[in-house]
Amino acid sequence: MKITEVDAFYLAMPDIAATADGTQDTFLVRLRTDTGLEGWGESDASPLVSLACYCCPPSHANIVNLRSSLLGAPLDSVEDLRRVRGRALRGALDIQHVHHAFSAADIALWDLLGKRLDAPVWALLDGDGARAFPKRPYASVLFGDTPRETEARAAQQRAAGFDAAKFGWGPIGRDGRAADVALVAAARAGLSDDALLLVDAGWAWGEDAATAAQRAADFAEHGVGWLEEPLLPEAIEAYRELAARMPAVPIAAGESSGRFRDAQDFIANGGVDTIQIDAGRIGGITPAHAVRRLAERSATPYVNHTFKSHLSLAAALHVFAAAERCELLEYVVGGAPLAQELVRDPLERRADGTVVAPERPGLGVTVDVETVRRYLRPVRISVGGRELEVGDQQP
Amino acid sequence: MKITEVDAFYLAMPDIAATADGTQDTFLVRLRTDTGLEGWGESDASPLVSLACYCCPPSHANIVNLRSSLLGAPLDSVEDLRRVRGRALRGALDIQHVHHAFSAADIALWDLLGKRLDAPVWALLDGDGARAFPKRPYASVLFGDTPRETEARAAQQRAAGFDAAKFGWGPIGRDGRAADVALVAAARAGLSDDALLLVDAGWAWGEDAATAAQRAADFAEHGVGWLEEPLLPEAIEAYRELAARMPAVPIAAGESSGRFRDAQDFIANGGVDTIQIDAGRIGGITPAHAVRRLAERSATPYVNHTFKSHLSLAAALHVFAAAERCELLEYVVGGAPLAQELVRDPLERRADGTVVAPERPGLGVTVDVETVRRYLRPVRISVGGRELEVGDQQP
Repeated sequence: MKITEVDAFYLAMPDIAATADGTQDTFLVRLRTDTGLEGWGESDASPLVSLACYCCPPSHANIVNLRSSLLGAPLDSVEDLRRVRGRALRGALDIQHVHHAFSAADIALWDLLGKRLDAPVWALLDGDGARAFPKRPYASVLFGDTPRETEARAAQQRAAGFDAAKFGWGPIGRDGRAADVALVAAARAGLSDDALLLVDAGWAWGEDAATAAQRAADFAEHGVGWLEEPLLPEAIEAYRELAARMPAVPIAAGESSGRFRDAQDFIANGGVDTIQIDAGRIGGITPAHAVRRLAERSATPYVNHTFKSHLSLAAALHVFAAAERCELLEYVVGGAPLAQELVRDPLERRADGTVVAPERPGLGVTVDVETVRRYLRPVRISVGGRELEVGDQQP
Repeated sequence: MKITEVDAFYLAMPDIAATADGTQDTFLVRLRTDTGLEGWGESDASPLVSLACYCCPPSHANIVNLRSSLLGAPLDSVEDLRRVRGRALRGALDIQHVHHAFSAADIALWDLLGKRLDAPVWALLDGDGARAFPKRPYASVLFGDTPRETEARAAQQRAAGFDAAKFGWGPIGRDGRAADVALVAAARAGLSDDALLLVDAGWAWGEDAATAAQRAADFAEHGVGWLEEPLLPEAIEAYRELAARMPAVPIAAGESSGRFRDAQDFIANGGVDTIQIDAGRIGGITPAHAVRRLAERSATPYVNHTFKSHLSLAAALHVFAAAERCELLEYVVGGAPLAQELVRDPLERRADGTVVAPERPGLGVTVDVETVRRYLRPVRISVGGRELEVGDQQP
């Protein structure tokens, strides 16, 4: 089959709050083909900047927009997928944003190919004999503004059946050591002692490895499973210094990886204990799967980063569904309605609390076009008086 | 003084050829202040994608557009500059493209600050007692389509007074070993034996360090000063492998660096012999200067990458004007009229063939507003029916 249409959609809630909540808007790509099949994907990235990568006029041979590279491409095999991917990224190699933008297209390509070959994406990725292993979802939520609010939020997750939860962002790192410890202690209290508690510091200590190591020691007393992103994304040297300090809890990082090399750099040079990859940022399922393989070779646990809809969650899960030793799954709880309503068949927890990747072809989730319509922000761009083709205005 | 206006301009030639010529369009930022002073900067990046970073609606606390972070900021000292820069990048940390986009603003901030403090940018960067050392410009041109054309082009550079030239892109790497060697031999013949000859392979051998090492050996017979970008930008492991093979000519790379870390990675892990930084991609003069300092500490020669107008060339030169040991300057020869006409006072070679950074305040070059007007492609963007503020439509 051939790709005949490339449509980009910008969805947003009516009001956007200046918090760390990444579910308030989104960027979707739909690929359609001459067989009538269609595939969908989602990036965790600025919708407008990403959309510009699909329609920007060419600057020279290394700045060619993604839409023109995708249109007309044949897609009947994994080799075809790698070929069209290679061509699109090669043509846009001088666009820094290309990986964030292409993530949605890469995911849509796998969705399409799975439908074409009548196989779930994880089976295409991991080949004959692969099976999808159940994952233990951890509820991913933001810290409350106070310890009290955090404790209540933690108790809520427990009541909702989660035996693992991650708290992140909000006030952590803002008000000093005692305040940070109080937040973590509150999360532990609300969750009770037998649950897995993870902490996401959201770059709180910049390049200061010493403070990060001190907090790790503090948090260890509350049985924290990992300390995530204590330092800035670019601070690989500081991550290396932190690793050399042998922190009292494992360090997790990598969600910022916008290229395969960034993830490789975190593992090889940053010395992180767990690598977290967002398939909606690194360029899609293809490079995320390559990082998973790399992580397996270096015995570094791999886990998804996902803070979008279940379209993104499905893409993230397929990457490591067949990897038995990757046990945890980041699972967004709450989030804006546009994220909650985006697919008609979300990846619900089963009776035993686990989540397993769908056996249906492609990603195995169905985008609700009504939701797309409801939250759509049609984009119009003209350059030098010429209206650009940015895809359908209506889904 | 305070920043009162942030204007982004998309300039392009009427027709864009699918070659490696990066001078066919450009992205400019002008910052104006309540004192009447203004500063200009240029990115080497997709104009539309970069412009989107200045006007995109917020997605959450980590995706805030650059224009809103710059407006109203005080700018009276280097500390102010670092503060507004930090705030803008922090607010846009989840936009992958932010470094490419912000480059123009960072350059404009230094231009402005120099005018405010009545000092050339290099003096602000390198402090008391600094002076601007003359640089040896090397003519940077593309290979001809054939050895014959390449030889003629080389002879032209020699006749124009250059005793150093770099040939890049075009057919190199396309037609095998003999063809590559013939191109390099032709460049050497046209340039004659006493000139410095540099070769830019434009990613020709992907991740294949063995072939790159073989070509280095072949080119060494023609007295090549360095082999540039033989491998893909992300292929740091392959660069490391190439370094381990002790190639017969020095390896240069780094122009793709879109973040400080990328450059650090090339030096620390890729083992490159010369680091090449484009201030119009890495986020401006500030991170480029930090890379120069890093390169000095690790005894790695630093050189600019510049393939835009003399506005970019001036920004690139200020970064290492005061570094006596950085002797070479990439100097674009030819290029599209919009690049050639962008400043009224280009950095001409002096009688002895060298180029020296201006002593005038700021960047020391004057943007020709008539040129901006002539090549302007006004951009209009609306999201959900609301027209975005993308800056003045006319300069």
